[in-house]
Amino acid sequence: MKRRDFFRNGLLTTVGFGVLGSRPILGTPLTHRQLDGVKNIIFMVSDGMSSGTLSMADILMRNKLGQSSTWISMYESGELKRSMMDTASANSFVTDSAAAGSSWGGGHRVNNGALNIGPNGEEHKPILQKFKDAGKSVGCVTSVQITHATPASFCVNQNSRNAMPEIAVDYLKLKFDVMMGGGQELFDPSKRKDGRDLYAEYKKAGFQIAKTKAEMLKATGDRPLMAVFTEDGLPYAIDRENNDDLRRDVPSLAEMTKKTIELLSNNQKGFVMQVEGGKVDWAAHANDAAAILYDQVDFDEAVRVAVDFAAKDKNTLVIVTTDHGNANPGMFNPGSKNAKFETLFDVKCSNEHLLKQINANMSNAQMIEIIQHYQNVAISKDEADTLRKSFSLGEDGLYNTSKLPMELFGGILSNHNAVSWANTNHSGDYVELAAFGPGSERLPGFVKNYELHNFLLEVAGVSKREFATA
Amino acid sequence: MKRRDFFRNGLLTTVGFGVLGSRPILGTPLTHRQLDGVKNIIFMVSDGMSSGTLSMADILMRNKLGQSSTWISMYESGELKRSMMDTASANSFVTDSAAAGSSWGGGHRVNNGALNIGPNGEEHKPILQKFKDAGKSVGCVTSVQITHATPASFCVNQNSRNAMPEIAVDYLKLKFDVMMGGGQELFDPSKRKDGRDLYAEYKKAGFQIAKTKAEMLKATGDRPLMAVFTEDGLPYAIDRENNDDLRRDVPSLAEMTKKTIELLSNNQKGFVMQVEGGKVDWAAHANDAAAILYDQVDFDEAVRVAVDFAAKDKNTLVIVTTDHGNANPGMFNPGSKNAKFETLFDVKCSNEHLLKQINANMSNAQMIEIIQHYQNVAISKDEADTLRKSFSLGEDGLYNTSKLPMELFGGILSNHNAVSWANTNHSGDYVELAAFGPGSERLPGFVKNYELHNFLLEVAGVSKREFATA
Repeated sequence: MKRRDFFRNGLLTTVGFGVLGSRPILGTPLTHRQLDGVKNIIFMVSDGMSSGTLSMADILMRNKLGQSSTWISMYESGELKRSMMDTASANSFVTDSAAAGSSWGGGHRVNNGALNIGPNGEEHKPILQKFKDAGKSVGCVTSVQITHATPASFCVNQNSRNAMPEIAVDYLKLKFDVMMGGGQELFDPSKRKDGRDLYAEYKKAGFQIAKTKAEMLKATGDRPLMAVFTEDGLPYAIDRENNDDLRRDVPSLAEMTKKTIELLSNNQKGFVMQVEGGKVDWAAHANDAAAILYDQVDFDEAVRVAVDFAAKDKNTLVIVTTDHGNANPGMFNPGSKNAKFETLFDVKCSNEHLLKQINANMSNAQMIEIIQHYQNVAISKDEADTLRKSFSLGEDGLYNTSKLPMELFGGILSNHNAVSWANTNHSGDYVELAAFGPGSERLPGFVKNYELHNFLLEVAGVSKREFATA
Repeated sequence: MKRRDFFRNGLLTTVGFGVLGSRPILGTPLTHRQLDGVKNIIFMVSDGMSSGTLSMADILMRNKLGQSSTWISMYESGELKRSMMDTASANSFVTDSAAAGSSWGGGHRVNNGALNIGPNGEEHKPILQKFKDAGKSVGCVTSVQITHATPASFCVNQNSRNAMPEIAVDYLKLKFDVMMGGGQELFDPSKRKDGRDLYAEYKKAGFQIAKTKAEMLKATGDRPLMAVFTEDGLPYAIDRENNDDLRRDVPSLAEMTKKTIELLSNNQKGFVMQVEGGKVDWAAHANDAAAILYDQVDFDEAVRVAVDFAAKDKNTLVIVTTDHGNANPGMFNPGSKNAKFETLFDVKCSNEHLLKQINANMSNAQMIEIIQHYQNVAISKDEADTLRKSFSLGEDGLYNTSKLPMELFGGILSNHNAVSWANTNHSGDYVELAAFGPGSERLPGFVKNYELHNFLLEVAGVSKREFATA
């Protein structure tokens, strides 16, 4: 199945390059300057994106769809100012998403797992609270639970990222303008241990609630919006696009981003929003090539939406980055005419979705047929045997609550789709950090993650203190 | 053993930043401009350097030595113009070093394994021949055989990179000014199948020959120099630095680079040289963390030498890049206080050197003790058992002629030094490409590898045709 329309209205639309009059200047002295504050900031995070994830998604898009990713094409055009970021946390060279997000959100490195609370208990005021105080509209969009570490790191103080039920209550008090993602389990009285009906409480507090794409699209900018589309994380993009119900009810990251910009941009003092492609990280933990590549494409579509807006608006800074590497996947031995890697052009589902349709009682022939149908590769009988045995063993993992043999299956598929993985966890790699629009010229060529906090405040003119660059 | 003087006269010396008056400007229109030609070019390749390799080496240097790598510190200062490069070959998304080097060397993508000969037999004139014709002095420096794919790709046309004995003869005819590396097996009559004594032939043709660091240092600029220090590749930096004989007789990449610049820079028309950290690639193939990190540091020292020269000279362009990723290593789960990764601060040898001292007849206790002594980690009895059994099996690999269990040992050490690997082969990742000095401002933010060929010729004013940027 060639689905050139995979992301409709998407890849083949020209991005509004060149609308901005001025181009960024590398190496401009960064201190002792005053800028008029940038009105809006869109901060975009492809969570857990190793270097190979960005590369492989771009290679897939160029060769399947005939057009480069927005991210890479903007490096090519010079419109995107590129930097490199060190991602350490307070207690490790390798961060988790809570500490990484807190470095941006609170301006200080904290221990892994913490949200804007330092090693000695010190609370760092989250950046969206600061921007809200300054009169701007604020919001978060994510493909995982809206209470998950990355959006939470811009909003709240919590000792542990695991306090998602409490974070859902925090959001009620904060009354930010737009919050969109998954995580109905955190709002539903039948799922919460304390039995609170947060939906009812949010409504009482004046929120609009949306649970489907249609409801989201109807939302108006006169009241805050809490949009929660799925039980936990949103489906992988590849699974959403191949399921009519999901495509109808669950928006893409680009669709959420577009609507959020629309809702937030009626404030004359501007807005600040975070957009997280959170399932890129989950796919990396699961060593799931189909999932990670199409969720990276999904993220890239959201980047295009943000850049299109910023190019027209001329007073919006777009940051595009990731919080840390994860699993360091790469394309290896792609086969004659790249045939192995190109099997990924025609996959129909994620490994997770596929493994849920397999069980230990199936014959080799059945398993091989199902995998061929959905994943477009022919595994061997030996591989089918190995896979079957693994079902009885189970496999643990933070993002593998079904205990599916994700790592093992990812390893088997490596022989067929040419994508191999170094691990199932975060890496300490320095990562991509890019910026578009006014203020981007002030971004140094290498930054430590926590330095972005003051950078954003000062570029927006919210903090008058000049940010440090060293 | 804390050896802060690991690379003597090295890391703690200040790089001459800021000597260049003008800073590069991102996004300057790249076509339809004329530049006075840049006099000298130093083209530096850390062969097979994945993103994680650069990051981990920098983290090691910051935390062991208290100073960032030259490469990253120049991103930080803004002195190094940064770009991203697609590394495909004519027949694969994943290149080998011959095709990658040929894209730069000949300006066209060729099939993997070929040196400047296209899929239909077309010969592309190698770039150092073009620069030599233009009156410049030219040379190559590498830590592997001087006839290996990367230096050869700047010099010769050959259907196969495996034709190293023929390439050694090609070099005799080319009579380039300075060639330095390993590979005595290609010159020695007792090792060559044709029995030719190339050393004698080179001398007869007017070359100086050097086989030790002392002989290299004595070389003069009045005759071409062929310096060949070791049988095949040079030792890994970590092994050289921990062996008095090797440290005396085999130069570091920085020492070779410094001497080559000295020899080449007496030509008023300028020089062009390639510097390859070739054993970074070998270490990646071998999943050898100690080897790859310290060879990356060794390469970085050579970058510092080149940049120091260029900063003073003011008419030298330095390119710093890699030809492709390899193995996509990363730091994962570095342990409490990063203790696992920090075991690498005090290793005494490469995995290769260590495995040559182990055999299948050793007791567990003996193996554990040797590994603890040299590699600073305590493997378990189970791991020792696994390792012992693997010796009888052997392990293949292009860069593993001793059939040592490199991949298996690398995997065992991952549990202890926190460095994991995705594969033992090249990856299709887009890679780092950076430039310092005049002409660097013309480097686009994303390039395909073959575009660098014309870029170099035109920046140097050797080709008058404007280079394409798309």
